Amino acid sequence: MASTLFKGIIAYPVTPFSERDGALDIPALEQGIERLIKDGVHAVAPLGSTGESAYLSDAEWDAVADSSLRAVNKRVPVVVGISDLTTANAVRRARFAERAGADAVMVLPISYWKLNEQEIFDHYAAIAGAISLPIMVYNNPATSGIDLTPQIIMRLVREIDNVTMVKESTGDIQRMHALYRASNGELPFYNGSNPLALEALCAGASGWCTAAPNLIPQLTLDLFSAITKGALDEARKVFYKQLPVLEFILKGGLPTTIKAGLRIQGFEAGIPRAPLKALSEAETQRLAALLRDIG
Amino acid sequence: MASTLFKGIIAYPVTPFSERDGALDIPALEQGIERLIKDGVHAVAPLGSTGESAYLSDAEWDAVADSSLRAVNKRVPVVVGISDLTTANAVRRARFAERAGADAVMVLPISYWKLNEQEIFDHYAAIAGAISLPIMVYNNPATSGIDLTPQIIMRLVREIDNVTMVKESTGDIQRMHALYRASNGELPFYNGSNPLALEALCAGASGWCTAAPNLIPQLTLDLFSAITKGALDEARKVFYKQLPVLEFILKGGLPTTIKAGLRIQGFEAGIPRAPLKALSEAETQRLAALLRDIG
Amino acid sequence: MASTLFKGIIAYPVTPFSERDGALDIPALEQGIERLIKDGVHAVAPLGSTGESAYLSDAEWDAVADSSLRAVNKRVPVVVGISDLTTANAVRRARFAERAGADAVMVLPISYWKLNEQEIFDHYAAIAGAISLPIMVYNNPATSGIDLTPQIIMRLVREIDNVTMVKESTGDIQRMHALYRASNGELPFYNGSNPLALEALCAGASGWCTAAPNLIPQLTLDLFSAITKGALDEARKVFYKQLPVLEFILKGGLPTTIKAGLRIQGFEAGIPRAPLKALSEAETQRLAALLRDIG
Amino acid sequence: MASTLFKGIIAYPVTPFSERDGALDIPALEQGIERLIKDGVHAVAPLGSTGESAYLSDAEWDAVADSSLRAVNKRVPVVVGISDLTTANAVRRARFAERAGADAVMVLPISYWKLNEQEIFDHYAAIAGAISLPIMVYNNPATSGIDLTPQIIMRLVREIDNVTMVKESTGDIQRMHALYRASNGELPFYNGSNPLALEALCAGASGWCTAAPNLIPQLTLDLFSAITKGALDEARKVFYKQLPVLEFILKGGLPTTIKAGLRIQGFEAGIPRAPLKALSEAETQRLAALLRDIG
Repeated sequence: MASTLFKGIIAYPVTPFSERDGALDIPALEQGIERLIKDGVHAVAPLGSTGESAYLSDAEWDAVADSSLRAVNKRVPVVVGISDLTTANAVRRARFAERAGADAVMVLPISYWKLNEQEIFDHYAAIAGAISLPIMVYNNPATSGIDLTPQIIMRLVREIDNVTMVKESTGDIQRMHALYRASNGELPFYNGSNPLALEALCAGASGWCTAAPNLIPQLTLDLFSAITKGALDEARKVFYKQLPVLEFILKGGLPTTIKAGLRIQGFEAGIPRAPLKALSEAETQRLAALLRDIG
Repeated sequence: MASTLFKGIIAYPVTPFSERDGALDIPALEQGIERLIKDGVHAVAPLGSTGESAYLSDAEWDAVADSSLRAVNKRVPVVVGISDLTTANAVRRARFAERAGADAVMVLPISYWKLNEQEIFDHYAAIAGAISLPIMVYNNPATSGIDLTPQIIMRLVREIDNVTMVKESTGDIQRMHALYRASNGELPFYNGSNPLALEALCAGASGWCTAAPNLIPQLTLDLFSAITKGALDEARKVFYKQLPVLEFILKGGLPTTIKAGLRIQGFEAGIPRAPLKALSEAETQRLAALLRDIG
Repeated sequence: MASTLFKGIIAYPVTPFSERDGALDIPALEQGIERLIKDGVHAVAPLGSTGESAYLSDAEWDAVADSSLRAVNKRVPVVVGISDLTTANAVRRARFAERAGADAVMVLPISYWKLNEQEIFDHYAAIAGAISLPIMVYNNPATSGIDLTPQIIMRLVREIDNVTMVKESTGDIQRMHALYRASNGELPFYNGSNPLALEALCAGASGWCTAAPNLIPQLTLDLFSAITKGALDEARKVFYKQLPVLEFILKGGLPTTIKAGLRIQGFEAGIPRAPLKALSEAETQRLAALLRDIG
Repeated sequence: MASTLFKGIIAYPVTPFSERDGALDIPALEQGIERLIKDGVHAVAPLGSTGESAYLSDAEWDAVADSSLRAVNKRVPVVVGISDLTTANAVRRARFAERAGADAVMVLPISYWKLNEQEIFDHYAAIAGAISLPIMVYNNPATSGIDLTPQIIMRLVREIDNVTMVKESTGDIQRMHALYRASNGELPFYNGSNPLALEALCAGASGWCTAAPNLIPQLTLDLFSAITKGALDEARKVFYKQLPVLEFILKGGLPTTIKAGLRIQGFEAGIPRAPLKALSEAETQRLAALLRDIG
């Protein structure tokens, strides 16, 4: 299980909407991705939580997948987020992503009714059987309503061939310990909780899936690089420096805060889709101050 | 606020799918509704959680709304469930329900990203402004991921004219106490947590929104009637009699357990849509035994 | 299991301390109990949570047990609260209570380290084996740190002869449902959560263990009597009338709020023992207003 | 605030009881401490959670404090645990510890009734005012029932002169981040959650308060030393090696598991005091296997 394409800073682009009519703004999407790649991120993950995947129609989703992959153009690996309430549409999207050239898919089993273990397993098995790409299991109960315990994750990894990576976003470091122990350190796991970045990397995470590079790319790269060279004091310093921004963007909801931050930095990606709203003026001032303090 | 069309047992129909191809089975939908009305329920609530509304395409949703209203044909009041991740589509569905003849809509603000109070308010305001039907606020954080506190609910009721009813499904009786106190007992509230039915009615709930009438209609009606006439001992007796079934259907997920129960009773409504699965054989035997014990 | 000495309103006296030196004020203790009995409560429960049992030395505890029993003087049944971190001292206190003339003991297995099921069982078995009084199992995880599930409680009831009653203070009505179902309605259970009083009695509770009679005895008695005669509308009315006081005294901590309320009513029982503090002036004004509104 | 006597591995001794009559076994207590010091721990913390402080009479507590300090005999710093339900007795114990020669006290505000912020503050202020030793604030809501938020802790640190250190045992690394940020990295904080040891030290903890050195002293020292020299890979390796033992001793309750482990290693410290029980035979076999795997 050990080797992996994905290592380091895996960045989430936002999905820009036009302020005029709320439609997808594909040129801004492409520019946003270009910005991330120019800034040096190690991989790109479109259509994740930050990408407002849950709020897109099928046609929009397909357009974003397609445009994102063309914009990256194989310069870095791409993992496309797949989460849909029905298995049928999750399968459809995974197939679409594969045809469009994704290197992997990241699957979050979103729910209305809670799923039992077998329902979760069959959902993954159906998607895995429909594509030949590697699959990153994504656990984020706070948004998805389903908690994939380390036991369930290990079952998926052991019983489904192309399930080969895990992204853990609970923010509970013990989950990572459990995955490490259960796989003898061989299962690549990724941190999806921004304020846990330092500790997750110390505990052996292969990478950090994050929207932060949209606003503070160098600090995220510096943290990963300090850990890689074993410079713990430097890692701690660079982590505490960026922590106020990491906490802010998480607390306010990533699409909301990242789009506000991009606007502060002069990049126009619009605002999130309703019922999500733009960040309030007061909060935008706070974010601007945090970004200024760091810069 | 006090008077209301909706009182008593408000029944959720299931949304049947064909086992052959998973398509909507409209004739079975109509028969299921007919069954509920024949059994004497006081109102019908299509496209709720039990109706797998979350798993339907827009075209399917529209078809179910239309067929359900035609099947009821004004014999009892109908409240149509509206829950969509985007405000735009929630508005579209509410308008559709109004045109199709609904008496009210029940709005659940489902989330991927958590909504703050203003986002929740604006979501309700947008829907309320688009229709002239009364709106039942629906709180069910376990499925929707959003908790509408009594404070938020009272703000909606006070500031939006056609928000006039509340359905509480947290199972926490203190929420009902808070609504009662904040409105001097004038805001009609409904219980959506099956195992709380006795206490909610004792505490003043106007009705009980439930899928149980699909399987045990008379017991649900008997409970409401015992409470209405102040026969507390009888109410307690009939409640404890049906409690094992109420707990079972809640624990296993309503679409899953109700469809299994309907099949046990000889009514074919298929199985839920994947990733949801049919109830296991062992659990189906348990449900059959529970229904037999009661009968 | 069904018949029981204890039925109706079981009142907790406070344990008064002198403001001068913090010592026990036995005359005030006796007067407080006299007040409760004059007001008509059905039973008295000294040395409970309200009685600050946890903050007393052994000598003080013994003095309160003794004085309370003498003050009641067999006019109503008395259940003495037993909760001590060590089994040895819990046994000692239970024996003391028996010798002093208690009718029953109420045992709360308080913890520093969490107890497993066998440790809980052996704690109860040791106490039960040392006395011949009936034992009321008391579940209150919010103060004790140990949650006695219905399964554990039923094991205690089935395997230990003199464990014959349960007081449930979680505030979760489903716990009472579980006890009712598991014992076919034969195990007497009591409500220890003030804001659940209406629903617990509707669900079949034999009584209500409460500190509220110190301040509003008639309303608590009226609720019990309305339920007993099946007057549900009246019960609901009298419950909502007293609910603001019930919520207030629970939220502020019972020794703190009850002692403040007694002072408002002209009965001097001092303030709680440090680290507990007297109710703040602002909160005392609120309590006074709530009591005035009701009176 | 930055400099501190306490750094590195701060070990909790157990409090041995004779199996014959349950009395304190002072010679075994002294030998246990001697063992820890010989093994190289950096400091000793008697009368903590592991030391069953909560289950001792006052006379026993005093004897353990006295004997522990004499056994250490100034070879390493000693921080004595203070936690008592009443402020008066907590003050008495703190004074006793100072007179007996402690270098600091660690104060856990244990509760029956929840304490509000002012009650917590006054409890600390009373103890701090009675002694001139430095005080380590100890947060462990799982055992104490009181959660000291970073906000409350920072208030204690800022407003009470001799409150100068914090021990955090919630296991939530974000609490440490908050303390670090609020004090610009100047407040010494210690980790009290065994399975968080790696990450807490990476995040800047000054030390690790732990019972693990009773069983695996070298591994705990190796982890601290690897972190100190910035050898992250080595730290991770030695942490994952000991993690199964750390998880086991936490899960089973420290007095129970540590006393069982000591017996496995041939050191007789008896069993915990009832209601706590000896570790079961099956669990003891598991612990023996874990210790063998590591050795």
